[in-house]
Amino acid sequence: MNTTVHSRALLYTDWTLTEPYFDPVLLRTRETIFTIGNGYLGTRGSFEEGYPQALPATLISGVYDDVPVIYTELANCPDWLSLVIIINGERFRLDRGDILHYERQLDLHAGVLSRFVRWRSPTGKTLEFRFERFASLADRHMLGLRCQITSIDGSGRLAEPFPWKIEVQSSLNGYPENQGFDHWEQLDQGELEQGIEQGIWLQVCTRTSHIELVMAAKIAVIGTEASFQVASPPGYHTLTTTFMAAAGQTISVEKVVTVFTSQETERPVQAAQDKLLALPSYALLLKAHQQAWEAVWQHSDIVIEGDRMAQLAVRYNLFQLIISASPQNDRVSIPAKTLSGFGYRGHIFWDTEIFILPFFTLTQPAIARSLLTYRYHALEGARRKASHSRYQGAMFPWESAATGDEVTPRSSMPTDPYAEAVRIWCRDREIHLSADIAYAVWQYWQVTGDDLWLRDYGAEIILDTARFWMSRLEWHPQQTRYELCGVIGADEYHEQVPNNAFTNRMVQWHLETAVAVYEWLQRTFPNQAAVLAQRLQLTPAQLLSWQAAIAQIYIPYNAETGLIEQFEGFFQLKDIDLTDYEPRDRSIQAVLGMDETNQRQVLKQPDVLMLLYLMRGVQAAPYSHDVLQKNWDYYAPRTDSTYGSSLTSAIHAILAADLGAPAAAYQQFMQAAMVDLDDNRGNTADGIHAASAGGVWQAVVFGFGGIQLKNSGPVATPHLPPTWSRLQFKLHWHGTCHSFDFVPSDSHTPNIQGFIFDLDGVLTDTAEWHYRAWQQLADEEHLPFDRQANEALRGVSRRESLLLIVGSHAYSELELQKMMDRKNRYYVESIQTITDKDVLPGALNLLAEIRQAGIKIAIGSASKNAKTVIEKLGLADHVDAIADGYSVEHPKPAPDLFLYAAHQLGLDPAHCVVVEDAAAGIAAAIAGGMWTIGLGPADRVDSADIVLPNLMGIHLADLQTKLSR
Amino acid sequence: MNTTVHSRALLYTDWTLTEPYFDPVLLRTRETIFTIGNGYLGTRGSFEEGYPQALPATLISGVYDDVPVIYTELANCPDWLSLVIIINGERFRLDRGDILHYERQLDLHAGVLSRFVRWRSPTGKTLEFRFERFASLADRHMLGLRCQITSIDGSGRLAEPFPWKIEVQSSLNGYPENQGFDHWEQLDQGELEQGIEQGIWLQVCTRTSHIELVMAAKIAVIGTEASFQVASPPGYHTLTTTFMAAAGQTISVEKVVTVFTSQETERPVQAAQDKLLALPSYALLLKAHQQAWEAVWQHSDIVIEGDRMAQLAVRYNLFQLIISASPQNDRVSIPAKTLSGFGYRGHIFWDTEIFILPFFTLTQPAIARSLLTYRYHALEGARRKASHSRYQGAMFPWESAATGDEVTPRSSMPTDPYAEAVRIWCRDREIHLSADIAYAVWQYWQVTGDDLWLRDYGAEIILDTARFWMSRLEWHPQQTRYELCGVIGADEYHEQVPNNAFTNRMVQWHLETAVAVYEWLQRTFPNQAAVLAQRLQLTPAQLLSWQAAIAQIYIPYNAETGLIEQFEGFFQLKDIDLTDYEPRDRSIQAVLGMDETNQRQVLKQPDVLMLLYLMRGVQAAPYSHDVLQKNWDYYAPRTDSTYGSSLTSAIHAILAADLGAPAAAYQQFMQAAMVDLDDNRGNTADGIHAASAGGVWQAVVFGFGGIQLKNSGPVATPHLPPTWSRLQFKLHWHGTCHSFDFVPSDSHTPNIQGFIFDLDGVLTDTAEWHYRAWQQLADEEHLPFDRQANEALRGVSRRESLLLIVGSHAYSELELQKMMDRKNRYYVESIQTITDKDVLPGALNLLAEIRQAGIKIAIGSASKNAKTVIEKLGLADHVDAIADGYSVEHPKPAPDLFLYAAHQLGLDPAHCVVVEDAAAGIAAAIAGGMWTIGLGPADRVDSADIVLPNLMGIHLADLQTKLSR
Repeated sequence: MNTTVHSRALLYTDWTLTEPYFDPVLLRTRETIFTIGNGYLGTRGSFEEGYPQALPATLISGVYDDVPVIYTELANCPDWLSLVIIINGERFRLDRGDILHYERQLDLHAGVLSRFVRWRSPTGKTLEFRFERFASLADRHMLGLRCQITSIDGSGRLAEPFPWKIEVQSSLNGYPENQGFDHWEQLDQGELEQGIEQGIWLQVCTRTSHIELVMAAKIAVIGTEASFQVASPPGYHTLTTTFMAAAGQTISVEKVVTVFTSQETERPVQAAQDKLLALPSYALLLKAHQQAWEAVWQHSDIVIEGDRMAQLAVRYNLFQLIISASPQNDRVSIPAKTLSGFGYRGHIFWDTEIFILPFFTLTQPAIARSLLTYRYHALEGARRKASHSRYQGAMFPWESAATGDEVTPRSSMPTDPYAEAVRIWCRDREIHLSADIAYAVWQYWQVTGDDLWLRDYGAEIILDTARFWMSRLEWHPQQTRYELCGVIGADEYHEQVPNNAFTNRMVQWHLETAVAVYEWLQRTFPNQAAVLAQRLQLTPAQLLSWQAAIAQIYIPYNAETGLIEQFEGFFQLKDIDLTDYEPRDRSIQAVLGMDETNQRQVLKQPDVLMLLYLMRGVQAAPYSHDVLQKNWDYYAPRTDSTYGSSLTSAIHAILAADLGAPAAAYQQFMQAAMVDLDDNRGNTADGIHAASAGGVWQAVVFGFGGIQLKNSGPVATPHLPPTWSRLQFKLHWHGTCHSFDFVPSDSHTPNIQGFIFDLDGVLTDTAEWHYRAWQQLADEEHLPFDRQANEALRGVSRRESLLLIVGSHAYSELELQKMMDRKNRYYVESIQTITDKDVLPGALNLLAEIRQAGIKIAIGSASKNAKTVIEKLGLADHVDAIADGYSVEHPKPAPDLFLYAAHQLGLDPAHCVVVEDAAAGIAAAIAGGMWTIGLGPADRVDSADIVLPNLMGIHLADLQTKLSR
Repeated sequence: MNTTVHSRALLYTDWTLTEPYFDPVLLRTRETIFTIGNGYLGTRGSFEEGYPQALPATLISGVYDDVPVIYTELANCPDWLSLVIIINGERFRLDRGDILHYERQLDLHAGVLSRFVRWRSPTGKTLEFRFERFASLADRHMLGLRCQITSIDGSGRLAEPFPWKIEVQSSLNGYPENQGFDHWEQLDQGELEQGIEQGIWLQVCTRTSHIELVMAAKIAVIGTEASFQVASPPGYHTLTTTFMAAAGQTISVEKVVTVFTSQETERPVQAAQDKLLALPSYALLLKAHQQAWEAVWQHSDIVIEGDRMAQLAVRYNLFQLIISASPQNDRVSIPAKTLSGFGYRGHIFWDTEIFILPFFTLTQPAIARSLLTYRYHALEGARRKASHSRYQGAMFPWESAATGDEVTPRSSMPTDPYAEAVRIWCRDREIHLSADIAYAVWQYWQVTGDDLWLRDYGAEIILDTARFWMSRLEWHPQQTRYELCGVIGADEYHEQVPNNAFTNRMVQWHLETAVAVYEWLQRTFPNQAAVLAQRLQLTPAQLLSWQAAIAQIYIPYNAETGLIEQFEGFFQLKDIDLTDYEPRDRSIQAVLGMDETNQRQVLKQPDVLMLLYLMRGVQAAPYSHDVLQKNWDYYAPRTDSTYGSSLTSAIHAILAADLGAPAAAYQQFMQAAMVDLDDNRGNTADGIHAASAGGVWQAVVFGFGGIQLKNSGPVATPHLPPTWSRLQFKLHWHGTCHSFDFVPSDSHTPNIQGFIFDLDGVLTDTAEWHYRAWQQLADEEHLPFDRQANEALRGVSRRESLLLIVGSHAYSELELQKMMDRKNRYYVESIQTITDKDVLPGALNLLAEIRQAGIKIAIGSASKNAKTVIEKLGLADHVDAIADGYSVEHPKPAPDLFLYAAHQLGLDPAHCVVVEDAAAGIAAAIAGGMWTIGLGPADRVDSADIVLPNLMGIHLADLQTKLSR
């Protein structure tokens, strides 16, 4: 719950994301969220002035270096942000003095991160700081940082009189670290001068991959005379500029940085200096950057109207994808955590080809081509991997980096000296990746018609991986079929299984495609076909054997039931009902252990459903609406979609939309879209969930837009979420841009047939009684609790409230149950004194108006005493249905309670309005596809369609007007 | 050969070690060699100005932090040395400009490292720098660094006129690294002022062990007015002092540093600042430090006369031991590579108890007590290890660190992504350590009579490890004996062997000792005995079972042959003749591979002989002179003493001395003594070989001094090497200091019966002909070669000369052979022209005098043409024997050639004088136990007994007088 409460603190407009206060606890998560970049590099949203717990990072695409156990990782590059500001000897730090105002904002449209802080120093000097930074999209080797300092007030008790002496120390920090490891050796450093600006440069080199990197920076002070001093400790060249500031004076310090590596130029020192000296003004650089973003959004934006949170979240995910993709370097690809964090160490998975690539293929095909060409260059590594495993052709590694060799760690390394290492089987067993890459190659060709690329690059990828499959397939003469045993499918909860349906069918499809591509090549480019045949030793006999294999690969599909068995034996495993384990805050594997999970019919991520999704994309069997429905019904409830894999939600959203289940589709979609903004998996600090971000684009376009890619082009069958009044996007197809613009016919006149009221805080305020009951219990148990702690219980179920109060104290389940009973007893005793005077102002009048209008009324309250309270308040005659703490299993923010209430009223959720005062309640209503009225401060219920302080003086007509806006 | 040639460049006096030139190739090796320290910390000999390939390190005893794979390591602490000097904008760096003079000197007596450099900057400014540093032994939290700068000459072509602006940037570098890993988080930093001095401080904390460390530094400039500026980039606080220097002016910059961690004080920030402000002048601090060293040497010095190299080498080894041992903290011990490098990551092995401890036990017992108390505190970890392995009692870990838990890595981590990890079995199988620790405890008690420590600490160590042995012993009913199978003995070439003699007998001895200690405790301190009995659950029945086990442990000793079998089955392994593999530059395991080595009768280090050495120490079976002789004859030739383990040489030296084999003893002793000074194993860059250093002390005292520790006290039976004219040392025994002073009766009148002359450079100079032959060959092969390169071939064999010339060019063995033949052909053709006029001045006369005196003459030359040359020179009648390039297999510096010559003359080596002009030749003669006359510059043949420019005007009588000095 904490996470959700905190994340709500982010404020959204259509294009901006704002953090309204500084919370050191969220430092690392927010560093990830406020990552900026330009495809060449990414820089986490760390603060210029530095904090002990911070994880600043600038990661450059392709700059890998060796490291024990995990072989290689993206090397954190020198930190270009470092800016220490000292006012009359006092250093600016948010954790000292007082923060009078704070606001950090990421402008997605302009690609600019800014921060405004009004700060009072420990001695009482008040200043304002406006920071701004960008990684230029117009010139990817250029970075800009500006700090405007205004001296506001020196009247604090201890403050010195004006003018103040302000020192700004600007460094290139040559000691960056990858969680402690510094990949760089210091080579050289120096200074340069140009007019009033002064510059420094730093030359470093990775320890084992020997990539040279040079950063150069120049500083300009605008608004006053300033002096410059240089300190040049090895690796930490620092330029200090000193000036005097009068009261109210604003002075700007502009730091412009260039960066080059030996990957782009043989002489990075020269390149970084030359560019730095040739750059125009900061203002012009910023303008060019903003224009470049404008151009990118022209092609890649998605417009959603009627759902601001979805709008912002989608754009945020696209922003993060765009800043991780290099259009200039076809020897790099997008890591699983982009260039935004240390998770998975910059390694590249199938995430890129299956989840991320469609966005680029269909909106910026040049980038898609570059990303796929990375795999072409990685073929040599894939061949080494195949050869080391005694297979033929090219076997792409589960985790890939600079060379295309396998870089999945062999095992986890325990820190407990007596624990055994756990083998990581994906390395050897999760082999479907080679088919996934072929799928992405095929899709790129289908969408772009880029025959020359297929001829020169793509065909070799598809054909040499097909050769690998032929050597990997096992012929079982007794069954007269080909099998693949000992594999891990898309679902990683089951290791080393026989005949995984996903893998087997993808391999079959791959071989079909390989035959087709080879025939096309022979037909269209016979010379190139001959060259390739010789290079890969392809013979007509071999091609025949491929066709034979296609016919004989075993696919565990039961035509009678329509069910595909995830792998041979899956249906024999012990079944599971995931609701038995709710609520939980970790994966089912963490709950049950690896071995037990392996023995259950529970999935980490879609496997059969993933296969159906991919086969939907290529219009191939076994996909059909009927097969999808049957397998969805079987597998979706058995998938650990909350804490299993972040790859799940977007795919489930698309399939649910396909199957006409808009509430489920929307709920899954928002789970994917908010994965980082809400940190709803708790690991955003490690970096952006790139696959989920790519899935979000697919969910909007393929799911809600219902786009299917036919041979003739993209065809739409939109199923928009109920609250969306418009959806616009563009797709590129064979060099032409197709615009899509969906406006549901009924979106301007909501047809409200029912109202569902939360009870506490909406119709009455039992918070005080609850608080007293909890306080009594806590005192008896000697647990710390007070009114402030009570605030965190708003909208939280009884059980979860208790868990928050007991914190880390150990209680048995029985004791917890007894404590809940006791608290309830205290509460029930007290609510016997409730009367109709306890109905909140305005509520009774509004209820009467609603009934007069013939609109139905339900109560949707998590309280198990809702019925008693309604009776005591004298409202029993006003309501048609009561959904209370006994009605459903999953509490808010799950939509279940409100869906139950709507069902009791006999209404479609899209025709219901929920009135709520808690963030979780609004989220539940949105997840249920209902209209929402939020009561209370805006930062709590900001995502509601209408926000009101309370119900005093509110009339039904007002609400209807506002909803129809 | 390169290594030897370089290391000869170190110059020795009795107390100083001097590096006469700067060689960047040796940077890391010399950093280790010039390590200073004070037991609390060690600082490698890195340069203040910093170099790209440098490995600067300051390691503090006990400051461990977590790290993957190897669990924990000593964290490299912030670098206090950093001093950047900039003269008119030019930075002082040895790799820029010209080094006009260079000398680095470690004064072992004073514990001070100094460096003198005269340097001409790239623009032609000449300056002198005198650096000096020490880690105070008087106040172990204080470090001193001084740089005296003299502006010499500004007359270079581009040099600016005086005065020069000199900036000295002094930092505390908060970004130290353990081979890339930075263990520190930055907490805070700041400044302090005191009079004309200005200070800075840095507060950091280890990432996982959360040890806080604070360094504070103040700077004083003596000799001029200076201004100060501070730059405070996070973690790299830098104090820049700027002053103007006139021609010839000398200005001193003094940097005084204090350091504290949270291991010593709860408030390290305060402690470091308070101490810094309270310190007296640099000069007084230095004086106190020198006095403290004086006091330490009073107890721990060894005086050797007649062999300067041995004298210096022994003191050097003791110096390195003294600076690694903390007398103040009994929760730390001495790591295998001391505090001088990253090898073995600061982990603690049996090296400490068996190799290092005797030096402290017998010269500084308070330190020995502290080191042993470390193991007492580590008992909890040892119990956890035992319990995790399902044993009882305490099982000490093979590698230990802060907690006493096992920190041996489970396996090596290959960097090749397709290579499998290699399991490190020592972790689980090399179990003898627990008995080794008991041995050291017992020896400490025997030497000191410290009953109270044994009562309060030692007894629990001995008894709880005895309990472990009882649970580890395997009862074999068929053989009615106890066995220990699947172990690794002292010799690590054989993994998982049954009934290793070393282990089994040590365990038996351990149980015997445990019974004795327990009985002593019951007798002397019955209360404490009862407490311990309860704590360790000792019962009378158990004690009986211990005694039964003692009687029934199987020791594979054959009384008939007197041979102890290293382990059951060792004698069945394939035998080996190590000379078959010479010459080699790597271990036999590296030559044969792990598996094949495992199958051979070849040892990495003494095992049976180690057992005999330890049993000699406690006067117990199976040690006897006869058993030792038989097992020495068997095992010594089968031990890989050059490249196996560095633990071998000192032990072999002692046993050889015991057995009356002085030449072998001395050769092994010098191999151990020079292991780091000569870098003769090629890994000194990783840190000092601490066990070897401890072994060197034992070799002098127990070997050459022949000390045996009887119950009554130490008893000496000296067998000094022939060249030693005096040996003095002190031993502590039961609180009393015993002084030993050995002067061999014949040491003042060497009985010279033979002269052995090198040929080239001594009797004639064929260098010119050799040079021409090599030049002709090199020209034909297009290999770079000139007179300067020819210098490196002095004293080097034909084959090795050729290898030096071909360098990295690839030639097959056949090609090399053909080239040697060709060169020799050119040479042989040319030497046909030699006549008696080519005899060098003075030689003929001296040869005549020697023959007249009835003293024999031999030639000892590596040349295969020696006979031809002698004939052509007309000297054939003057010599009694010729040892040439055909005579022996191992070239100089092996003693073989000279020993062969002495044998030909029928003389004891101690009665021979070798006349040589090459460093390798002098080394060979010393190794052979002969007297030496070195011809040539002192820095080449400095270690000879007599150094002469050449033989001109030299008479036999002069030589005899000088040798008798």
